[in-house]
Amino acid sequence: MKKVLVCGAGGFIGGHLVKRLKKDGAWVRAVDIKYHDYVVSPADEFIKGDLRDPLFVKKIFDEPFDEVYQLAADMGGAGFVFSGENDADIMHNSAMINLNVVEASVVSKVKKIFYSSSACMYPERNQMDPKNPNCAEDSAYPAQPDSEYGWEKLFSERFYMAAKRNYKLDIRIARFHNIFGPEGSWNDGREKAPAAFCRKVAETPNGGEIEMWGDGQQTRSFLYVDECIEGVLKLMNSHYNNPINIGSDEMIQINDLAKMVMKIAGKNQKIIHISGPLGVRGRNSDNKLIKKVLNWVPNMPLKDGLEKTYQWVLKQVNTNI
Amino acid sequence: MKKVLVCGAGGFIGGHLVKRLKKDGAWVRAVDIKYHDYVVSPADEFIKGDLRDPLFVKKIFDEPFDEVYQLAADMGGAGFVFSGENDADIMHNSAMINLNVVEASVVSKVKKIFYSSSACMYPERNQMDPKNPNCAEDSAYPAQPDSEYGWEKLFSERFYMAAKRNYKLDIRIARFHNIFGPEGSWNDGREKAPAAFCRKVAETPNGGEIEMWGDGQQTRSFLYVDECIEGVLKLMNSHYNNPINIGSDEMIQINDLAKMVMKIAGKNQKIIHISGPLGVRGRNSDNKLIKKVLNWVPNMPLKDGLEKTYQWVLKQVNTNI
Repeated sequence: MKKVLVCGAGGFIGGHLVKRLKKDGAWVRAVDIKYHDYVVSPADEFIKGDLRDPLFVKKIFDEPFDEVYQLAADMGGAGFVFSGENDADIMHNSAMINLNVVEASVVSKVKKIFYSSSACMYPERNQMDPKNPNCAEDSAYPAQPDSEYGWEKLFSERFYMAAKRNYKLDIRIARFHNIFGPEGSWNDGREKAPAAFCRKVAETPNGGEIEMWGDGQQTRSFLYVDECIEGVLKLMNSHYNNPINIGSDEMIQINDLAKMVMKIAGKNQKIIHISGPLGVRGRNSDNKLIKKVLNWVPNMPLKDGLEKTYQWVLKQVNTNI
Repeated sequence: MKKVLVCGAGGFIGGHLVKRLKKDGAWVRAVDIKYHDYVVSPADEFIKGDLRDPLFVKKIFDEPFDEVYQLAADMGGAGFVFSGENDADIMHNSAMINLNVVEASVVSKVKKIFYSSSACMYPERNQMDPKNPNCAEDSAYPAQPDSEYGWEKLFSERFYMAAKRNYKLDIRIARFHNIFGPEGSWNDGREKAPAAFCRKVAETPNGGEIEMWGDGQQTRSFLYVDECIEGVLKLMNSHYNNPINIGSDEMIQINDLAKMVMKIAGKNQKIIHISGPLGVRGRNSDNKLIKKVLNWVPNMPLKDGLEKTYQWVLKQVNTNI
């Protein structure tokens, strides 16, 4: 029976990953600083603790795991990572976790480790044109991410690569592009655009007004969490050990994203544009490499994932009244 | 009486800094993972311990220091940082130290902290022409250091800057350019070019052969350690809180550096060029900013510092026979 460790199992993607790993028959040790906010983890063990603490990390790596998934990070949507107010904490907390996890993986002879990097590590200069952003894997250098969150991901990617070279650590690295879906942040200040618009549309009566940061002409792509997990597992089963995008290439204007949510909700609301943290002007996953390496690309239409997400957020909104 | 903490006090620059601080009348707590290899530290306290351990770091920050000097790092000359073999350790060890030290500085309300960054953080593209390298402070981005040692310095610089923004930590950051002098590594695999050539010339009879990595046409500048310390103290007493070069702008070919040492030694030896780790093709400190900000630049001729260094290395060589 495959023994798996999931770091960050109390978070959004980690929670979905644990479900899938259990469904696939693995023995799973889940670790996080908090229990999952929305589901009871089906993990065989859930150890609550601080991955910034080297001693705690040594303890949870007390056996040679077949696979480790390192998803733990101090992160959130634009309101959290682009405000500038959390920069030092993001760098400190996430870097400490990665430094500890890699060291413990080497010492305990982990067979294979997955690290979740982010599209936020790509340089700002290639993401100024909302209609034509470039996020090909080989466009990452010379480096100039637009956030400290992105700089930490870039540094930690390099650290995993160094451990691969120096310690033969068998690594897989994905650069996630805006993963979304049910059972994630929707109202705690760390939510991303899809969950935020689902909440705003759900909470606002038909004919009312919802707020949006910026002019809404910035573009992004969004990947539904089930397809993200599928990509991660396919990557783990492949031999590709350099950073690779896992994201959708269905790029959409943020204005259109909000309208898509309204259509799902059967509501018509007015968008009020206000100032707020924005990030880059345009971003889209470049899927040429993943197509070549895994012979697979995500293909669920955005509106299908958004439908599921809206229904879940609507339920939260109704429960929270 | 000013209370000062020196992290990395068992190292080359840290050792010289402690001497100077004591001469200037400060109370000094010195910390390092090892005692100094060549001198008995005049520090009021010398605490031996591992700065990668967050608990140890919390303990040594048990009072609000007036000044902290963070010089601790896993580092060395080209043979150590450019071989590629130590990349993961360098990143892990140095980043852990900086993450811990900044956190403890914020918590214990340190009044001012100095961080020693490095010219190794500058992008390789501006250092390809040995006659005309560009290391102006504002040439650092977009980023592409040629070593993981440089990437760690870059990441940690950004972390200190983030702590300045988010926690009002009063920081000073210098980018050191090849500091040299007596009482530093000369034969342990971490020595830099000046000490290495002093050793080779001292150990080799007149008319013999000494080895050099590369064709010797690569250029560098070297700053004598006393002037480095002078610059650090001037920076600490200034209000400038962005990264600034501390280095010499007396650029020299490595072939000429070796010949200068031979002249000091009164020897004539043949240089044998062999392959080895090299680093960038050219590097020189750009001193326009420091001149403007501190109204001071280092001005000791290279040969004067090299003379002192040679005499010290010669003594070590003779003692070690």
